[in-house]
Amino acid sequence: MNSPLRVAVTGAAGNIGYALLFRLAAGDCYGMEQPIILHMVEIPPAMKALEGVAMELSDAAFPLLHGIEMADNPNDGFKGVNQAFLVGAMPRGAGMERADLIQANGPIFVAQGKALESAAAADVHAVVVGNPCNTNALICSSNARGLPAGRITAMTRLDQNRAVSQLANKAGVLASDIGRMAVYGNHSPTMFPDFLHATIKGQPVADTLDQAWLEGDFMTTVAKRGSAIIKARGASSAASAASAAIDHMKSVWHGTADGEWVSMAVPSRGEYSVPAGLIYSYPVTISNRAYQIVEGIEHGQYAQKKIAASADELVRERDLVADLLA
Amino acid sequence: MNSPLRVAVTGAAGNIGYALLFRLAAGDCYGMEQPIILHMVEIPPAMKALEGVAMELSDAAFPLLHGIEMADNPNDGFKGVNQAFLVGAMPRGAGMERADLIQANGPIFVAQGKALESAAAADVHAVVVGNPCNTNALICSSNARGLPAGRITAMTRLDQNRAVSQLANKAGVLASDIGRMAVYGNHSPTMFPDFLHATIKGQPVADTLDQAWLEGDFMTTVAKRGSAIIKARGASSAASAASAAIDHMKSVWHGTADGEWVSMAVPSRGEYSVPAGLIYSYPVTISNRAYQIVEGIEHGQYAQKKIAASADELVRERDLVADLLA
Repeated sequence: MNSPLRVAVTGAAGNIGYALLFRLAAGDCYGMEQPIILHMVEIPPAMKALEGVAMELSDAAFPLLHGIEMADNPNDGFKGVNQAFLVGAMPRGAGMERADLIQANGPIFVAQGKALESAAAADVHAVVVGNPCNTNALICSSNARGLPAGRITAMTRLDQNRAVSQLANKAGVLASDIGRMAVYGNHSPTMFPDFLHATIKGQPVADTLDQAWLEGDFMTTVAKRGSAIIKARGASSAASAASAAIDHMKSVWHGTADGEWVSMAVPSRGEYSVPAGLIYSYPVTISNRAYQIVEGIEHGQYAQKKIAASADELVRERDLVADLLA
Repeated sequence: MNSPLRVAVTGAAGNIGYALLFRLAAGDCYGMEQPIILHMVEIPPAMKALEGVAMELSDAAFPLLHGIEMADNPNDGFKGVNQAFLVGAMPRGAGMERADLIQANGPIFVAQGKALESAAAADVHAVVVGNPCNTNALICSSNARGLPAGRITAMTRLDQNRAVSQLANKAGVLASDIGRMAVYGNHSPTMFPDFLHATIKGQPVADTLDQAWLEGDFMTTVAKRGSAIIKARGASSAASAASAAIDHMKSVWHGTADGEWVSMAVPSRGEYSVPAGLIYSYPVTISNRAYQIVEGIEHGQYAQKKIAASADELVRERDLVADLLA
């Protein structure tokens, strides 16, 4: 048995946090030989509910859960952590525009970036789940320059998984039959799920599925899936978001399979003509806990336009938070 | 890869169901080589929310999830199922006594017993999670006499896990250091968590922990844990109950470790002077998907009294539902 990994979860008393914590403690992310100590971080008014979550976690008697820490601030919460799931964020209130949301979240991620830099373990990896996650990750990493570049990433795995699910259902195959489903750009309706390079049982998706459906219903269903779920469930995606966060960190931890790639928003260095410095989702491969952006993929005009449009949106988001970037 | 197992979950759109489904689909119960097809069963008014849960499950792109079926009745829902988690039950309304609750739930479990007998696979195993689970399981199995005895059990694993958690926290050890923590009786405050035969790192609990604490705070904390969690979280135990249900069925599926036992409410044949026919929680060992009640444990007067008191309560519950027993 390895020595325990310290794993932080912010927004730990929220719905995504609740779905995430039990799967982490069950071994779904780091495997059955890796004990963990959970660092649950919340805002002060949520500490009582968090106490209840801690009771339930303890009551599950997980063999791999070697400790539970609770904190109402990131400086205490991130002490010595090796992995961080930054789930907590300001929810979008009634009548709030995306720009308002971006600005409301800024200060949270300034503080979390500083805390990761000063308090976390030297090998820390963090994934930002709280929205707008790309720009939150940008603020966070800009305030944690002492960490190696690329240690703070943002989650577009839920978009990838949603795209996989749409393709699998339409083609009547299993999710595991879909390969190389990369999502480019911002975790927002401008993202581009690149069906042109995705595969079904190793063959191009376009060999099986209709191009009009792919450019039409497929794209809009993936982009608007979040609201469709709210409409059906009466609550926003929680367990599927937690599951994608686990997939993201599992890929970071265990690496990607040979020939496969996953989607992850990482600092751009100009790949695919995206302005350097943005936190942009690309297909990546991972080994030894370091990702590499997949380069050399040929994109036609249709894809290039979409890749550029999502980058443009992220530039505008960056402008909105310019004063928070160190 | 094995051929898929059909796994039913009733109350699938509820909070325990929501926590349970994603862990089942992730492989937490049947392992990473066992694909499953989920049969989600709900009552008609919950079908729209269930649709949202199905969307999220699909969006998690689980490699092991080979299908999702939905039904608004157990006859359709249990068709061909090999495993069934009977989670859905009437919740206790304001001013409702336990007796009212028992009678309100009766017809649900009559119908489910009949449906298990007529529609499920010949190898079906079912666990009743919905409360009052022992008496619900009694009604259910009494209406499914075509199934071999003991195929329908009730869950006291959450009580066991809560007891383990209390002992581990008090002794400052890991949950996995606690052994043989058996719960006897009804899943209600009369249950008896037998600390007298439980072990810490193989040694009797009483070697480490104070007898007064064990007979006092320990017993009441375990018995009243459910309400303490509602108080803290503002919602009843969901993820810890789902986790215990997984532990229960995992034990049925994979068996128990050598020298270890688990708690499960099963049909009594008079063991420990409990009236035969009650669904009573005992320590059991399991191999080849068949349990055996651990016999020959010596109980002193203190334990005998508690074991009898919980049996008495179950006799009274049985009397309340006498007209529903076939």
